[in-house]
Amino acid sequence: MITKEQILHALSHVEEPDLKKDLVTLNMIQNIEILPDKIKFDVVLTTPACPLKGHIEHACRNAIGLFVSKEATVDINMTSRVVGVESAQLDGIKNIVLVSSGKGGVGKSTVASNLALALAESGAKTGLLDADIYGPSLPLMFGLEGTRPESIQINGKQKIAPVEKFGLKLLSIGFFTDPNQPIPWRGPMATSAIKQLFGDAHWGDLDYLVVDMPPGTGDIHITVAQSYPISGAVIVTTPQQVALADTMKGMAMFRMDGIHIPIIGIVENMSYFTPAELPDNKYYIFGKDGGKRLAEDNNVPFLGEIPLVKAVADAGDNGFPILLDADEPVVNAFKEIAGRTAQELSILANQVG
Amino acid sequence: MITKEQILHALSHVEEPDLKKDLVTLNMIQNIEILPDKIKFDVVLTTPACPLKGHIEHACRNAIGLFVSKEATVDINMTSRVVGVESAQLDGIKNIVLVSSGKGGVGKSTVASNLALALAESGAKTGLLDADIYGPSLPLMFGLEGTRPESIQINGKQKIAPVEKFGLKLLSIGFFTDPNQPIPWRGPMATSAIKQLFGDAHWGDLDYLVVDMPPGTGDIHITVAQSYPISGAVIVTTPQQVALADTMKGMAMFRMDGIHIPIIGIVENMSYFTPAELPDNKYYIFGKDGGKRLAEDNNVPFLGEIPLVKAVADAGDNGFPILLDADEPVVNAFKEIAGRTAQELSILANQVG
Repeated sequence: MITKEQILHALSHVEEPDLKKDLVTLNMIQNIEILPDKIKFDVVLTTPACPLKGHIEHACRNAIGLFVSKEATVDINMTSRVVGVESAQLDGIKNIVLVSSGKGGVGKSTVASNLALALAESGAKTGLLDADIYGPSLPLMFGLEGTRPESIQINGKQKIAPVEKFGLKLLSIGFFTDPNQPIPWRGPMATSAIKQLFGDAHWGDLDYLVVDMPPGTGDIHITVAQSYPISGAVIVTTPQQVALADTMKGMAMFRMDGIHIPIIGIVENMSYFTPAELPDNKYYIFGKDGGKRLAEDNNVPFLGEIPLVKAVADAGDNGFPILLDADEPVVNAFKEIAGRTAQELSILANQVG
Repeated sequence: MITKEQILHALSHVEEPDLKKDLVTLNMIQNIEILPDKIKFDVVLTTPACPLKGHIEHACRNAIGLFVSKEATVDINMTSRVVGVESAQLDGIKNIVLVSSGKGGVGKSTVASNLALALAESGAKTGLLDADIYGPSLPLMFGLEGTRPESIQINGKQKIAPVEKFGLKLLSIGFFTDPNQPIPWRGPMATSAIKQLFGDAHWGDLDYLVVDMPPGTGDIHITVAQSYPISGAVIVTTPQQVALADTMKGMAMFRMDGIHIPIIGIVENMSYFTPAELPDNKYYIFGKDGGKRLAEDNNVPFLGEIPLVKAVADAGDNGFPILLDADEPVVNAFKEIAGRTAQELSILANQVG
């Protein structure tokens, strides 16, 4: 007769590769059932977007085979419960992830929206807040121009209801402004607008709230960093030297006293262009490996590179983000970045906890 | 015997194509000399960067041949005196030209620096002020990292001396900050830094002061627009829809009450990519003709398009702007844009005057 203890003993030999502890110590093995014909248990990962899911499942099967019984049928339910810094200020949001860039035009909004979509597709409850007060692009990218979020009563308080589309909860500063009218934001106006998007919205329970920040280093960054418990920042850059210089500054800002936001890693966008007629050629128009080197030099994770692809630009323009197009090879690049981002967040949460 | 009056009569038949008046009415004919063996006079254009220079000279020769004498040797000195709104606040600067974009990363600094270099190369006294407080790129683009401008006494006042390089007078907010340290500028700090770059610098006499503005619409734009007499703004965009939407907003800002800055025209950057192996192919990665259509729809001049060229990105990264590389075909695109910009400024000055 197989016992629960035998199973836990076996699985205590399986290490979570990112967190460097075994699954039993991490309390990831739950609901063990020993039935006449099979063994059942849940592996509760720290994120549904975990790219090591398959690897961990395989290791669990091996461990049962080795330490318990070669003949046993093993039914593993791979599930997840996202960990994070749950915050008093923003009830129910486990991780606030900033997507930032030192320079504009590097594809920050493209990365933010596809990162959020990939996290949602993996099964995580995800929101996307477009805080780019100077050029909100979420309404165009999600085909939501002219949308006005509804107002709802929550515990007697008036709250903004995020718009739901493609499995995400969405808010943008662009929902509240006329797209053809410029708002020359004075600092304090911008700050209070952002505070409303964070605090006056009814986000509900979220595993991840991805925030598309304005480019550069300014009032909004200081406000957000000091007002909310941020899990970390994903930094987007192109390989170009002029972009990297600004990216360095952006990272230095997150490391400043009174700000101290962990850097989840660097995404390099517009890495190279490949014409359809010359599928083996990579044209490094903006230089090669600039983002990767920057990550190495600064000892932060490199989350991945995204090639220059017309379909990505078109998708953003057409209100149907590229991640929803399963046939596009570039989608894998975004999914890998989402997986690594979720991994790094799990590691960070584990360090804190 | 040929008379001065005959020559003026002949040249009164030559129209300045942009200003739609004849050269005599425009007071462009100066220093007429009738020598025994030849006729000499100056044609004083409104800008040395005038792309119609050759055309006007040819028309003058024709007019003399037709109305004065077929045999006369005509010696024409094509020269220029830039017109503009000379300002009390900024003594000696004839034209302040903003280079702006609704969105960052569209190549605004590349356009600003190469526009300034092309104007200087044509013979105009030109300055370049990098007011992009969030990501000053002039020091890197001009190989001037670590440069600190000197301080000089002018009429008993302490002034900043612009740095001179490649025939330009240069100042950047980046000369006063540590490139590796971020400055999370609060609105009022940014505003006062910009005012110093404009007002506390000793620019001397300039035909054109090209100002590389921060992207978007913010404090700096309001301050600059309301504090100085701006001749006009060159708007840089990529053909991408998300960029165009921000560009619309940028233009709307310049047209707002209390700002009212004429739009000189639109430059489309990153228009297409041509691999060396397929010189006839144009890959419109970010869409086709977006900038041109935007110009048409808004009834503003289209100043030209610049292809995606690795050499342009490299040049910016290497501290030696592309305009200084005579062998690069893309240089002509920048020169044409400079010529059209100077033309439009002449037209604007003529409308005002």
